[in-house]
Amino acid sequence: MTDSTPDLHSGCVLNARVCRLDQAQGYGMIESGAVAWSQGKITYVGDSDSAPRHGQVIDAGGALLTPGLIDCHTHLVFGGDRANEFEMRLQGRSYQDIAAAGGGIASTVRATREADDHALLLSAEKRARQLLADGVTTLEVKSGYGLSEQDELRMLRVARELGALTGQDVCTTFLGAHALPPEYVGRADDYIDLVCHEMLPAVAVSGVADAVDAFCETVGFSLAQTRRVFEAARRLGLPVKLHADQLSDGGGAGLVAEFKGLSADHIEYTSEQGVQAMAGAGTVGVLLPAAFYALRETQLPPIQRMRELGVPMAVATDLNPGTSPITSLRLALSMACTLFRLTPEEALRGTTVNAARALGLADRGQLKPGMRADLVLWDAEQPAELSYWIGGLPPRQVWIGGGSTH
Amino acid sequence: MTDSTPDLHSGCVLNARVCRLDQAQGYGMIESGAVAWSQGKITYVGDSDSAPRHGQVIDAGGALLTPGLIDCHTHLVFGGDRANEFEMRLQGRSYQDIAAAGGGIASTVRATREADDHALLLSAEKRARQLLADGVTTLEVKSGYGLSEQDELRMLRVARELGALTGQDVCTTFLGAHALPPEYVGRADDYIDLVCHEMLPAVAVSGVADAVDAFCETVGFSLAQTRRVFEAARRLGLPVKLHADQLSDGGGAGLVAEFKGLSADHIEYTSEQGVQAMAGAGTVGVLLPAAFYALRETQLPPIQRMRELGVPMAVATDLNPGTSPITSLRLALSMACTLFRLTPEEALRGTTVNAARALGLADRGQLKPGMRADLVLWDAEQPAELSYWIGGLPPRQVWIGGGSTH
Ligand SMILES: [Zn+2]
Ligand SMILES: [Zn+2]
Repeated sequence: MTDSTPDLHSGCVLNARVCRLDQAQGYGMIESGAVAWSQGKITYVGDSDSAPRHGQVIDAGGALLTPGLIDCHTHLVFGGDRANEFEMRLQGRSYQDIAAAGGGIASTVRATREADDHALLLSAEKRARQLLADGVTTLEVKSGYGLSEQDELRMLRVARELGALTGQDVCTTFLGAHALPPEYVGRADDYIDLVCHEMLPAVAVSGVADAVDAFCETVGFSLAQTRRVFEAARRLGLPVKLHADQLSDGGGAGLVAEFKGLSADHIEYTSEQGVQAMAGAGTVGVLLPAAFYALRETQLPPIQRMRELGVPMAVATDLNPGTSPITSLRLALSMACTLFRLTPEEALRGTTVNAARALGLADRGQLKPGMRADLVLWDAEQPAELSYWIGGLPPRQVWIGGGSTH
Repeated sequence: MTDSTPDLHSGCVLNARVCRLDQAQGYGMIESGAVAWSQGKITYVGDSDSAPRHGQVIDAGGALLTPGLIDCHTHLVFGGDRANEFEMRLQGRSYQDIAAAGGGIASTVRATREADDHALLLSAEKRARQLLADGVTTLEVKSGYGLSEQDELRMLRVARELGALTGQDVCTTFLGAHALPPEYVGRADDYIDLVCHEMLPAVAVSGVADAVDAFCETVGFSLAQTRRVFEAARRLGLPVKLHADQLSDGGGAGLVAEFKGLSADHIEYTSEQGVQAMAGAGTVGVLLPAAFYALRETQLPPIQRMRELGVPMAVATDLNPGTSPITSLRLALSMACTLFRLTPEEALRGTTVNAARALGLADRGQLKPGMRADLVLWDAEQPAELSYWIGGLPPRQVWIGGGSTH
């Protein structure tokens, strides 16, 4: 960049209620605060009066400025939807009827395999934009509806392309061990062989995944199978995370902690031992209250124990067509507070600083110099409003890497 | 209108999946359907091929067209918000602490009385627009945070002005018997005297209310006090409705049915007798699942009995700052299905044809000739998607009385 080129990614927001989240506790509010940035990075956080005025200068008029929200657990690349199945269930139709009508995850695998790349990308873009309309500047996307080498790679490539369309930063996760593909019914270990010996190496070589995940559950893969996936990931230098203890305590949280995993997700049924292992390993607990809501689950995650042992808690949408068709991270904040009794501060940390940590990203989720200029200006006075209002409250303006998205 | 003036309120949507809701059962879908209207009224509903093409002509490209949504129970005119109290509760602060910090409905009464008309109108407009962004073309607004003759009338006037700003059709309800104002502590019967002998006559004379409501509950007003309010309303020719049996079975549903009321709202604790009375009187049961969600209530309304006895069910937001700070009627659809197990069809009827009935309006809520041209075009293929997706799915276009809102 030369002197004559204006830096499109520099600017300054003045007269904001700045919510820094820069300490271990508290919102870190600055009333009449300002944030300035240059070349996509924050250069100043402090009083409005002393702020450097350069690039785009915005007077917030007292509105709330927070870090960009981070959705650290989604499955938003998929074909079709499951509205039909949702309706059949509510009409009281039996599981056999629904299966006969092609319901369940198998229907999403079929629709995803059938969709061409362009259709997959278009529908994923729509959902990513809905998250953006809610202030989400970074999101994670998992594969797991392809369940063949070709289709898993295809899903991850589509996820990688998303960011170029929406401007968001997209992290990708290989979730080959999400479900057993129909070709492998009764041969789960053979499928895990395929995941470990063919899919994972191909994923690693092509560089399309930032991490590796699995669904460890009685209705998913066993602890031993998950361990094999994690060992293969470790050999390839890929970090791991896990769908753990969602429907029963299968020891998943302990396993992912043993591998110094990024996060254990769902964790409704995680045992005391599991929480202790997470605390020891620094593994983030990712809470997915919309799945809890949609499944009418009643078992709450061990939130008080995570607080006591200092396990960082993140909050994400789990956006997926079966068990969590939610396209709003702010609604997940509402549910985290209302259903899980998180405080609004815990919920907001869960979608900023702790969500960044769950993705292994140290450069975002807080407002301080050196961090990415991912910012959301809200038509609100205090951070608690982000969890309090159910729906509504669209951001006034969003910046990603210092660039305004509208 | 002369021949040379184009009719801005005429038009035609072609190639839509038209969801008519014109029969007692079923969506009444027309694939490749069309709806045409003139001077604000629907003139044609049928095949796309034979549709009259006049005014604004829109090709829906297979998208879903439904009646405009109707939110038949809101309290969206109020001062302040209660985010602070929400946060204090989640921080584990005691009710005494919260009361000492000025929490509860008293804080909303204070903030509403302190707000000038313009401030009240501006904040209400913002919330009404959020409902509109979700496809709500008609909404009801209650008073009940003024609790003095002057402030109750002021709230109702502000509600009446809303429609001119947003284009929505707004029904107003006098809810003077919402809570005991601080000036009347220990003198509830005296306050009911004021409501019946001064407020209600002033409301009737000024014509600012379409109906009369009360909060009949152990923590609200007694059955006898509510009866007095209803008798006064009847003398003045105003229809009644009731916040009934929300926290306990107080016989409210039976009382409002006795007065041939429009609706009994909340009704979580309504008895068999209450449901039978509603069925006999044709009183609509208005379900408010977001209040159920926010209060973490566990007692479900008697939905199966209402089905069996043919009590029409409506679904509304109950938008209010204390127990239901929800600004999305589509989210209430999701909650009606997920928490109350309504079918998507029941939920949609609950925000269209049955919501119209709960407001005493016979000219909307269905797509058939003669009805108001209140229409929503959704980026969806089937009606179940409106309840299935949690968040997202903004309407592609909304018409109110035949006029496009964007
Ligand atoms: Zn998931
Ligand atoms: Zn209410």
